[in-house]
Amino acid sequence: MNSRIAGPALAVLLAANFASAQSWQPPADAQRCPSKWGAADQRGSANHMKPETVLRAARLIRTGQVFELGHVLSGSMPFFGTRRFDVHTKRTNMNVGSNRRGSNEEIIVGELGQVGTQFDAFPHQTIGGSLYNCFPLEENATRSGFAKLGVEGVGALMTRGVLIDVAALKGVDMLPDTYEITPTDLQQALERQKQTLQPGDAAIIHTGWSRLWEKDNARYVKTNPGIGVAAAEWLAKQDPMLVGADNWSVEIGPNPDPAVSLPIHQIMLVVNGIHLLENMRLGELAAARAYEFALVLQPLKIQGGTGSTVAPIAIR
Amino acid sequence: MNSRIAGPALAVLLAANFASAQSWQPPADAQRCPSKWGAADQRGSANHMKPETVLRAARLIRTGQVFELGHVLSGSMPFFGTRRFDVHTKRTNMNVGSNRRGSNEEIIVGELGQVGTQFDAFPHQTIGGSLYNCFPLEENATRSGFAKLGVEGVGALMTRGVLIDVAALKGVDMLPDTYEITPTDLQQALERQKQTLQPGDAAIIHTGWSRLWEKDNARYVKTNPGIGVAAAEWLAKQDPMLVGADNWSVEIGPNPDPAVSLPIHQIMLVVNGIHLLENMRLGELAAARAYEFALVLQPLKIQGGTGSTVAPIAIR
Amino acid sequence: MNSRIAGPALAVLLAANFASAQSWQPPADAQRCPSKWGAADQRGSANHMKPETVLRAARLIRTGQVFELGHVLSGSMPFFGTRRFDVHTKRTNMNVGSNRRGSNEEIIVGELGQVGTQFDAFPHQTIGGSLYNCFPLEENATRSGFAKLGVEGVGALMTRGVLIDVAALKGVDMLPDTYEITPTDLQQALERQKQTLQPGDAAIIHTGWSRLWEKDNARYVKTNPGIGVAAAEWLAKQDPMLVGADNWSVEIGPNPDPAVSLPIHQIMLVVNGIHLLENMRLGELAAARAYEFALVLQPLKIQGGTGSTVAPIAIR
Amino acid sequence: MNSRIAGPALAVLLAANFASAQSWQPPADAQRCPSKWGAADQRGSANHMKPETVLRAARLIRTGQVFELGHVLSGSMPFFGTRRFDVHTKRTNMNVGSNRRGSNEEIIVGELGQVGTQFDAFPHQTIGGSLYNCFPLEENATRSGFAKLGVEGVGALMTRGVLIDVAALKGVDMLPDTYEITPTDLQQALERQKQTLQPGDAAIIHTGWSRLWEKDNARYVKTNPGIGVAAAEWLAKQDPMLVGADNWSVEIGPNPDPAVSLPIHQIMLVVNGIHLLENMRLGELAAARAYEFALVLQPLKIQGGTGSTVAPIAIR
Repeated sequence: MNSRIAGPALAVLLAANFASAQSWQPPADAQRCPSKWGAADQRGSANHMKPETVLRAARLIRTGQVFELGHVLSGSMPFFGTRRFDVHTKRTNMNVGSNRRGSNEEIIVGELGQVGTQFDAFPHQTIGGSLYNCFPLEENATRSGFAKLGVEGVGALMTRGVLIDVAALKGVDMLPDTYEITPTDLQQALERQKQTLQPGDAAIIHTGWSRLWEKDNARYVKTNPGIGVAAAEWLAKQDPMLVGADNWSVEIGPNPDPAVSLPIHQIMLVVNGIHLLENMRLGELAAARAYEFALVLQPLKIQGGTGSTVAPIAIR
Repeated sequence: MNSRIAGPALAVLLAANFASAQSWQPPADAQRCPSKWGAADQRGSANHMKPETVLRAARLIRTGQVFELGHVLSGSMPFFGTRRFDVHTKRTNMNVGSNRRGSNEEIIVGELGQVGTQFDAFPHQTIGGSLYNCFPLEENATRSGFAKLGVEGVGALMTRGVLIDVAALKGVDMLPDTYEITPTDLQQALERQKQTLQPGDAAIIHTGWSRLWEKDNARYVKTNPGIGVAAAEWLAKQDPMLVGADNWSVEIGPNPDPAVSLPIHQIMLVVNGIHLLENMRLGELAAARAYEFALVLQPLKIQGGTGSTVAPIAIR
Repeated sequence: MNSRIAGPALAVLLAANFASAQSWQPPADAQRCPSKWGAADQRGSANHMKPETVLRAARLIRTGQVFELGHVLSGSMPFFGTRRFDVHTKRTNMNVGSNRRGSNEEIIVGELGQVGTQFDAFPHQTIGGSLYNCFPLEENATRSGFAKLGVEGVGALMTRGVLIDVAALKGVDMLPDTYEITPTDLQQALERQKQTLQPGDAAIIHTGWSRLWEKDNARYVKTNPGIGVAAAEWLAKQDPMLVGADNWSVEIGPNPDPAVSLPIHQIMLVVNGIHLLENMRLGELAAARAYEFALVLQPLKIQGGTGSTVAPIAIR
Repeated sequence: MNSRIAGPALAVLLAANFASAQSWQPPADAQRCPSKWGAADQRGSANHMKPETVLRAARLIRTGQVFELGHVLSGSMPFFGTRRFDVHTKRTNMNVGSNRRGSNEEIIVGELGQVGTQFDAFPHQTIGGSLYNCFPLEENATRSGFAKLGVEGVGALMTRGVLIDVAALKGVDMLPDTYEITPTDLQQALERQKQTLQPGDAAIIHTGWSRLWEKDNARYVKTNPGIGVAAAEWLAKQDPMLVGADNWSVEIGPNPDPAVSLPIHQIMLVVNGIHLLENMRLGELAAARAYEFALVLQPLKIQGGTGSTVAPIAIR
């Protein structure tokens, strides 16, 4: 290496090398469509949601203990970009009738599919102009939602949840800011916990990152530890119902390869039709070493929505 | 009766008589506070949410069958007054990176605590300037939510649900537009189904009214069959976790007594601290005669919110 | 013509012929850029706004009579597509201080650049991915406005306004639903009024269409009479500061050529950099035969906005 | 004074003394109603808007120079409390038709009557439950605006504007943070400028405070120099069309008397029916010593609105 090349120039050079040598490329449409769930399929991994899946999860409820996995929704949450969650209180009736009834409500404004603890449906992401199962973006994006693949079609999810505690594996409260979780990390964490992933499970990854929630929002959204391409592809092979984590994008952000933008979003949502669950609140679950549980999740049935803010629970 | 008194004048006279003779009056603060859950209590009927309640519900899961009890959220739902639910699709990234990633989200605007299938928290209603457990309105209502009693404190609810099918009892698909459900109706419906209510249950009333949902919205919100004061007081004595129905206000609307305004909202939310669950989608549950089930409900944790739109499920 | 070809099939055939023979095509980038106002110009026709233009307009103020040319903004206006204008009243303080002050405000939600009487700035429209003066869309469209060409840069406009009363020329209150206004119509209307257009004028076209405003909103937005391609190109040659009309798109909608979509929007905003002023309230002006006046218009300075709802006036 | 009383306790004591001795009290309803403009009047000082007022202003247009008195509307403006102004860009059509038309618009959310450079209409403020001219609050406040006194009824205003440069009088760029402007200040500033106020004028006060706009927003909204009760009462006697200033409340904020809350808002809007114009951008006007000019202002015609963000101009 020419010792005079350094700093930004070096970074560009390395990035260029990196990109030409190794950048992840999305598969061609013909390679990914039709999806393994069939040519007309819009449900992807939610096809795992069957009576036997529910029963399998219900059998894990032994003590009735409930863990709340959703953060409180407020204007002081960390937000990505210009997203908002604003509550405007309205007093709409005051002292009405002989019973002196008063009424209050609120108008709420926000990117409701993509704030707080959030569930990603498939219209959230594309490869070029193409959605999951090669539904074309242009035909489906209307001014007020997506004609196909909208979150209203997902329905409630109840399945066996498995916490994969990578922070505990590494002996830290919180993984470093740009730590890429590898397939080995996931496998070792599962071994340590004496768990295995089964098809249809919810794979929930604990990074410890949510310790920053409303404590250091700027750091929370700037980068985050998370799964890389290799870990995502290994997880996709395990055939889960969803992959969740306690960070804002599940995946490592930004990707160590500067040429690609949030590739795990494409791998999961577009290529494999696997839902994501972001900004989870996992501290109590990890502290209790509750590695296996019934996960219950009720996405709002937003017509044509790209996702939904949610308040999931783990029960054991 | 003086035959010359007729039309509006007669109506006023009758209303006055009715009001003076029989109008329901909210109890004085000293009669209702502190609530039976204690002087500082903010949880009311959600105090029933305990591990044994969850286990009791989980034991009802025998087949893994899930019923979706929430309507799809869209701009074409019936709305009360000027409420809205608007979805504005946003394409926020297009063909970013060498992986050609596109991203979509939506800005949503609406009275999110009070649209669609919805869960009422206690700040929704007052008696004069006083909330549940006599928390004062003025001290708690801020520009962006309520300092106390907000829906973020409720948490997920999982309990035994009991469908009380009053429409089936009466042998109709849908109760008449202004039918007042009585305590006898509720008791006979339960007997017919061989069910009894237990403390902490979710009492879910089927009127058939949701057949009008998105079919005849104007009629849906103009009036509705529902429980009257006597039925509400009987239900409150059964000590439920919540009372739900497939209409927009659970209670008969408008009240047959023209002097009072939505008194059941006060009886449940303010006087007794019992949550309401409105605009439920109960057709499939009733058709399947699924009278007993695990009800699971995850209100959004809207900080200081008066309620939350929800997507509850029944599992059996 | 083959008599067996009819209905939709015929329409397709004609449309195809029409399109191949005559469809208006936007000029290539090299033909329209740089604009006549210079390579870096963002102001287009607003460059006419100079002290002498203001003085020329001020000299037309002889009686002090003011005509309000803006409609009232309300939820009952005609809207294009899913656009909204919602006002949510908020009582934010009540009886504060020894002076018992109460305060009210409102949260408003709407496509504020594109509702009501509205002024179009240049980012509103593109040819492919290119804006006025060939500023690229992708570089300028951010999540919260446009980096260049935003309506905040336009400033107040005050110029000589000329009403071109085409409805009066044709002897009708309102032009037919799909009437295309031609260059001859404009020229004859001006002759009839003994007016000529001068560079920098506001050319305001009276079609009578606003008689439907809040009277028959569905008809108002379904189609409208307005200028066609030939009239637009003639008007552009007159070098106006803006072109306004009392319909929702200034131009005939939909275009008689089914192959093209709102071409006058491109001709004015993208090709020539001439602002549009839509949904004007012109009835009083036309009734008073006020053909020449000072037009004053104050677009909101919405950072990066594609336009602004406005309340313009004519003064004479 | 007992030397052992200090800090908060002293403040309370002084406040109590101050309040009992001197606090401004709003006049009783019988003293202020009907207003001088008549019992049914809803226009207040806008009654000054007559043809001769317009002509008087037009005669001041001598050079055609226009001063923009409105700030740019953006999310980075200073906001009072939880107010917002959010722009969400929407790409609504892309490459439509053979003319490859693209379309952009934006959904905007904000307290539009009360953000940016803003014009206060009369429903903005009350004395107890009573509005200007004793219109009752409860009868007029609907969920979506005010039945009477709404800003839609004001119309465009054009009148002689007089800049009263108090900062220049005091020889400073900006008055101190809590400086109370007195009647003497106003009179001396007018004398210095050789101007007098006439009935129907717009009295525009330069404090220099807008130098902080988007530079130090926290300081801008924390307090501000402005007119006190005495100056407000003197100004009201001059019978202006409106009173404006380059700060967020025209009046000194908070009031030096801790017992009262924004009393000048009541004196102007409720007692005297005089409009306010806040957050003006006056730096250029003051630098040019443009003390007399035509002020033109076009409030948005928001049905039932408490005010309107505006983009006023001065012309001379």
